Amino acid sequence: MAVYTEVSDEELARFIDAYGLGELLSYKGIAEGVENTNYLVHTTKGTFILTIYEKRVDPDDLPFFLGLMEHLSARGVTCPLPVRDAKGDILNVLAGRHAALITFLEGMWPKRPKVAHCLELGKALARMHVAGQGFPLRRVNALGLQGWRPLFDEFAPRAEEIMPGLRDLISTELKFLESSWPDRLPQGVIHADLFPDNVFFIGEKLSGLIDFYFACNDALAYDIAICLNAWCFEPNFDFNATKGRALLMGYDSVRRLSSEERDAMPILARGAAMRFLLTRSFDWLNTPKDALVARKDPFDYVRRLRFHKSVASIAGYGCELAR
Amino acid sequence: MAVYTEVSDEELARFIDAYGLGELLSYKGIAEGVENTNYLVHTTKGTFILTIYEKRVDPDDLPFFLGLMEHLSARGVTCPLPVRDAKGDILNVLAGRHAALITFLEGMWPKRPKVAHCLELGKALARMHVAGQGFPLRRVNALGLQGWRPLFDEFAPRAEEIMPGLRDLISTELKFLESSWPDRLPQGVIHADLFPDNVFFIGEKLSGLIDFYFACNDALAYDIAICLNAWCFEPNFDFNATKGRALLMGYDSVRRLSSEERDAMPILARGAAMRFLLTRSFDWLNTPKDALVARKDPFDYVRRLRFHKSVASIAGYGCELAR
Repeated sequence: MAVYTEVSDEELARFIDAYGLGELLSYKGIAEGVENTNYLVHTTKGTFILTIYEKRVDPDDLPFFLGLMEHLSARGVTCPLPVRDAKGDILNVLAGRHAALITFLEGMWPKRPKVAHCLELGKALARMHVAGQGFPLRRVNALGLQGWRPLFDEFAPRAEEIMPGLRDLISTELKFLESSWPDRLPQGVIHADLFPDNVFFIGEKLSGLIDFYFACNDALAYDIAICLNAWCFEPNFDFNATKGRALLMGYDSVRRLSSEERDAMPILARGAAMRFLLTRSFDWLNTPKDALVARKDPFDYVRRLRFHKSVASIAGYGCELAR
Repeated sequence: MAVYTEVSDEELARFIDAYGLGELLSYKGIAEGVENTNYLVHTTKGTFILTIYEKRVDPDDLPFFLGLMEHLSARGVTCPLPVRDAKGDILNVLAGRHAALITFLEGMWPKRPKVAHCLELGKALARMHVAGQGFPLRRVNALGLQGWRPLFDEFAPRAEEIMPGLRDLISTELKFLESSWPDRLPQGVIHADLFPDNVFFIGEKLSGLIDFYFACNDALAYDIAICLNAWCFEPNFDFNATKGRALLMGYDSVRRLSSEERDAMPILARGAAMRFLLTRSFDWLNTPKDALVARKDPFDYVRRLRFHKSVASIAGYGCELAR
């Protein structure tokens, strides 16, 4: 949470001018977003988010991310809509970096998700998956199955610094995932990072999905598995099957899960836990202790992984979705 | 620039509820304000700033600061207006800290102040001084003449770590200021920290003054002297007399400066440079190099002080204001 790139009034006024959104009234750097710099911008025409893309985002991916938001928004998914400037461009340059102006979404992310939130999340995720059909661009999931082993290799020699036994644990699990991963599940555009801080609510009503900067093509059901990890564990890492059931039922009510997808849920959930265990472990070892961005404990995902290994079928997540 | 205190949705919704401002729609931590935590809050009734007061603010001073904003706002000064809750209170508690909700002011602070900004600033400062008359609460200027020596004593033994000769320089200057400081100038409520980042403009039109958390009772002309230091030096520390003239003429057009005030301007400017030299030196020695808040270089004020010592009369600031 930080503002990495400072912008002068004159630069910003010129930038905004190109969009025909009236006069610039104010802008505030907002303390959210780990990867990019975000400003909340008021003009005489409304409220917008200005995102300045920092080094961790590959500029070649920006047309995919911004185009996807436009595609989804046009199909009724409440997500930020990139604004086109007078020339029709959605990607511009500000302060020497790529930048885009997107509509502001009201709402707050749930710090303590409830069952009702999980139900709405499931429905919204399914609507996003359906709306994503027909989006013409493609982006490989760099943090999918193929990416896990290279990432592990980068920190494996130091894995024991995080936790004794972590190296063996990941190594064994990776072998299992690589040999058993389902590769014939329905594919599509997934969000791939739909944690509570990326889903806005006003009360218990879902008001929007944000932060599509990990979106990619992968198995749709894998996106559900990420959400089971991100939304349905209690702070003590007990799995809350009532939340799991709400998430799965909500999803299935909009997009019916196939029997293959239902059967794959435990291994997909193990894979999702592995993905976050790997990136958190890497960041843990490579982020200075005094960095602006707080390090997140990899061990949280060891505990989630242990749970998933104990689950024999989708029923373990609260719901069989039997026909 | 940081968010020090995190607030949960439920807490904030309850807090906002007490103000009768409709439903809470969103809130974003903003990356501004060194001393306190600020959130930009949207409700169905409008946009507000929620300020959570952190440890450096003395809670006993809050009625002065908030009451002053209300007093000035009622007299036509564009500044944030503290909102009273249903019980009539402007100071409440949130997340275990004192907190207030104030109206949001549109506008941007000028990163590179121009002459036109200085003219408007002078007028607005004088209007604030006039409007402040009759404000019943009082607050001693803890960073005024009486406070400088105790502050210096706290870091004098380490002053040479900042710059060779700094200890002697401050010591000599302090003696001069203590023996020659004018004590019969017109008194009133001063802002005491009216740097460019506390003055908002839309284009060249001044839209508001913010951040009254150093306001106190002191010589009104001392507030002008602070502004001469804060607004009229170029990045290379040359004094821009055209800006100085605009500031002084703007002020004098609203509130006529007495001959005593005009005569005192060079020593007041030296005092103002001393005040910021002292606090910056103290902070320089007491802020860890890797702190969230950037340290500001005390040497900037040594250079300003040198200029003021070369000024014989107010004419040296660009304008005699002769009658």
